Amino acid sequence: MLFGKDRKATKPDAIIQQLMRIVGQKEVLYLQEDLISYECDGYTMSKGMPKAVVFVNNTKQVSDVVKYLNKQGIPYIARGAGTGLSGGATPLGGEVLISLVRMKKMLHLDLENRKAVVEPGYINLKLTQSISDKGYYYAPDPSSQYACTIGGNVAENSGGAHCLKYGVTTNHILGLEVVLPTGEIIELGEDGVPDRPGYDLLGLLTGSEGTLGIVTKITVKVLKNPEAKKTVLAYFDDIADASQAVSEIIAAGIIPAALEMMDQIAIEGVESAAYPVGHPRDIAAFLLIEVDGVAAGIEDQIDEILTVCKDNQVREVKVARDEAERGLWWANRKMGFGAMGAISPDYLVQDGVIPRTRLPEVLTKIAEISKKYDLRIANIFHAGDGNLHPLILFDARIPGQSERASSAGSACLKVCADVGGSITGEHGVGIEKSDEMRFIFHDDEIEAQTKIRAVFNPDDRLNPGKLFPQPGRCVEVKQEMSKEGL
Amino acid sequence: MLFGKDRKATKPDAIIQQLMRIVGQKEVLYLQEDLISYECDGYTMSKGMPKAVVFVNNTKQVSDVVKYLNKQGIPYIARGAGTGLSGGATPLGGEVLISLVRMKKMLHLDLENRKAVVEPGYINLKLTQSISDKGYYYAPDPSSQYACTIGGNVAENSGGAHCLKYGVTTNHILGLEVVLPTGEIIELGEDGVPDRPGYDLLGLLTGSEGTLGIVTKITVKVLKNPEAKKTVLAYFDDIADASQAVSEIIAAGIIPAALEMMDQIAIEGVESAAYPVGHPRDIAAFLLIEVDGVAAGIEDQIDEILTVCKDNQVREVKVARDEAERGLWWANRKMGFGAMGAISPDYLVQDGVIPRTRLPEVLTKIAEISKKYDLRIANIFHAGDGNLHPLILFDARIPGQSERASSAGSACLKVCADVGGSITGEHGVGIEKSDEMRFIFHDDEIEAQTKIRAVFNPDDRLNPGKLFPQPGRCVEVKQEMSKEGL
Repeated sequence: MLFGKDRKATKPDAIIQQLMRIVGQKEVLYLQEDLISYECDGYTMSKGMPKAVVFVNNTKQVSDVVKYLNKQGIPYIARGAGTGLSGGATPLGGEVLISLVRMKKMLHLDLENRKAVVEPGYINLKLTQSISDKGYYYAPDPSSQYACTIGGNVAENSGGAHCLKYGVTTNHILGLEVVLPTGEIIELGEDGVPDRPGYDLLGLLTGSEGTLGIVTKITVKVLKNPEAKKTVLAYFDDIADASQAVSEIIAAGIIPAALEMMDQIAIEGVESAAYPVGHPRDIAAFLLIEVDGVAAGIEDQIDEILTVCKDNQVREVKVARDEAERGLWWANRKMGFGAMGAISPDYLVQDGVIPRTRLPEVLTKIAEISKKYDLRIANIFHAGDGNLHPLILFDARIPGQSERASSAGSACLKVCADVGGSITGEHGVGIEKSDEMRFIFHDDEIEAQTKIRAVFNPDDRLNPGKLFPQPGRCVEVKQEMSKEGL
Repeated sequence: MLFGKDRKATKPDAIIQQLMRIVGQKEVLYLQEDLISYECDGYTMSKGMPKAVVFVNNTKQVSDVVKYLNKQGIPYIARGAGTGLSGGATPLGGEVLISLVRMKKMLHLDLENRKAVVEPGYINLKLTQSISDKGYYYAPDPSSQYACTIGGNVAENSGGAHCLKYGVTTNHILGLEVVLPTGEIIELGEDGVPDRPGYDLLGLLTGSEGTLGIVTKITVKVLKNPEAKKTVLAYFDDIADASQAVSEIIAAGIIPAALEMMDQIAIEGVESAAYPVGHPRDIAAFLLIEVDGVAAGIEDQIDEILTVCKDNQVREVKVARDEAERGLWWANRKMGFGAMGAISPDYLVQDGVIPRTRLPEVLTKIAEISKKYDLRIANIFHAGDGNLHPLILFDARIPGQSERASSAGSACLKVCADVGGSITGEHGVGIEKSDEMRFIFHDDEIEAQTKIRAVFNPDDRLNPGKLFPQPGRCVEVKQEMSKEGL
């Protein structure tokens, strides 16, 4: 597959030269040493060498590059910051990567109508930072928000810790400008319309993992800062008690802004990393619960949350004293994935969804998978919306461990699918989980989806081989599954 | 077009007989006198005689009927309660109507995971009624909720007065079972997944106005009743003041559960109908504002709303004393459309969306349209989300008035489109506004949508002629527009 890997290009070929004419000579990378860092995104288990990386500066350049590559029959992939966790921007080999990082301006800000228009390379956190002094923020907050781009968030329909109350990216997108795989430029969506006429193409493009078009302009909702927020940390000796507390908080009619859970191994990780809080190492799990809204209403909700925790045998529960303590708790939590590096040479993040009430049973099964594959598994969980992140710890230097980690990850997803959940909560399917799509979709359902892709992307030239199982691979997958006794 | 209108069928033909074999003899209407009430839905300006009405009882019957009609090349339309306001279930002439009103059961209720599974003919209000004693409700509340079906709500992506805070139907649908135009049965969506893998077909089907498939099972979210709600009624002498108050309430960070506005003519209507409140007849507009949530937080929000109203020259503002008064205010408001019958022989409801801040300017333009077409226009407005309902009053017995009403309605939509809004907030496009789609979509955007339709419904045999402008009609539309100086 790794087309180009052995090629030591020193002189640009005719295609590279033409791409340079479109975007400028310095805006095209084609030497192997320059391309190595583009072999994968944040999902490092699969790599492929691109033919070139092209840095586009405006919508017209995107359109011109796409039209030219179409003519040449060369596949291409849009790429943001490369922080994706399922290989959505990873080449199979030989594609041209269209990097959108230079298109990073805010084009328009309209606080009265609560929206902003940004280019796709605009960094997620920068939006909140640039409007927070006026009392506004942008809600979706993936853990990579200091680096990831809003264009990438649209492609992956990114979530984040605070998506329980406010929804994922698709709930915050009002409009898109898109370059279709034909090179045509279309506009989707408009101002704050509750029910757009026609089919919901805006919703269709959002989360399509870069397979239907390249987003070149994004209109997002911005929200008014809540008047107040309060954050609770609760330590439990039994994970079933923590799960029960989650269900009871939701059942009480409280929708927290965030409701996070971490288990013992995950706590060991974050306590060994940059922002230790001093969590006890011997608890089974903690809950991090944040409520926001009108100040007067919050006190009542906090009281109710404390009562629920006490009713469920909490060992210790406390409210953040001040913004500094709240900030530390969140910094510690947001280190979750990266902190695994402190306790394991390598780790694989999985991303499944389960009905909230099935958590204890799913965690038991994940513990069994850990035992079977002889790998430690930490669990970080957006508990409020049932989005589980098993972190499979392994050492790639030990032969066979990478493969075992990958199989253990797939087995975790199977457990999620089997309890009526899904194989991705917020990280997307990408390369990583294209085969696992069969856990939740029948052939005719996948076919309906690939037919939709064909409307926009008939030759599968835009981000080929992603999102859907490759034809002919299903037999292998099924065999592997039955081998593993799943 | 009215194929069949002159045909006095007395004996079932071979097609009717076969349909009777599939669903049962008594479940097929085919005599002209029985078909007359199916010539249109709640949009009465366009009518067409169906070939037959078939009452299906289960998913398999829907699939069998669809497969048989495909073989015969006969077009068909799914129909719920027929309360739609854009002709989405109105025949062009000769279609078979597949009525889903017999499929009206609740199949499953899971309050712990906050969801219910219903058949498409299940009536919207019945869901809230059946779970309210347990402290839950279903959020989307179209004014027709006592009659309309949840299947119809999915087709139209229905809204309602309380959609400002809680969103429209698409925000409350977790899963669908759908019979495709091939007769295949597919399942879309799953349990509470924040970001579903693959393309968002669930979102695509929702609001597709019965052109992509026939929904046979629906999983919806149910919500916990808010702990408390309070309702404010504010009378204004100047509509610009009322509009400014709307903007300031939202700008204060309050998201009311509902934020409704009615102008003087609309008030004249509701005060002449079944539930008069005693609103002064000489005010320019009233605002009806409801907040809900945790009891302690609500008082503060009410105080802030009262302050905003007073800062904007409100004549009188009051909080509902009790549930009875609140109920009366809402009954009065929900009579809004029907009440026009008390002050005009006929009326046409329009449904446009505008950016909230453009309201005063749009109302001025609507007043000019009223003058130009010499027809009174009342305005009912979901002010919080910018969804305007101009009600054009006319007398169909006076030659030319129906046509003038229709043109005035189109002109109102053009005004909405021109300020960056849209031609439908919640009623859909249907037959009524298929030509007006050109106000907001370019040809290539419409083409992208009709290609999506072709994936599911390649022969346009399911609900033909709806949602998109008919080929060849664009020239006429454009001429008419320029004649009217728009």
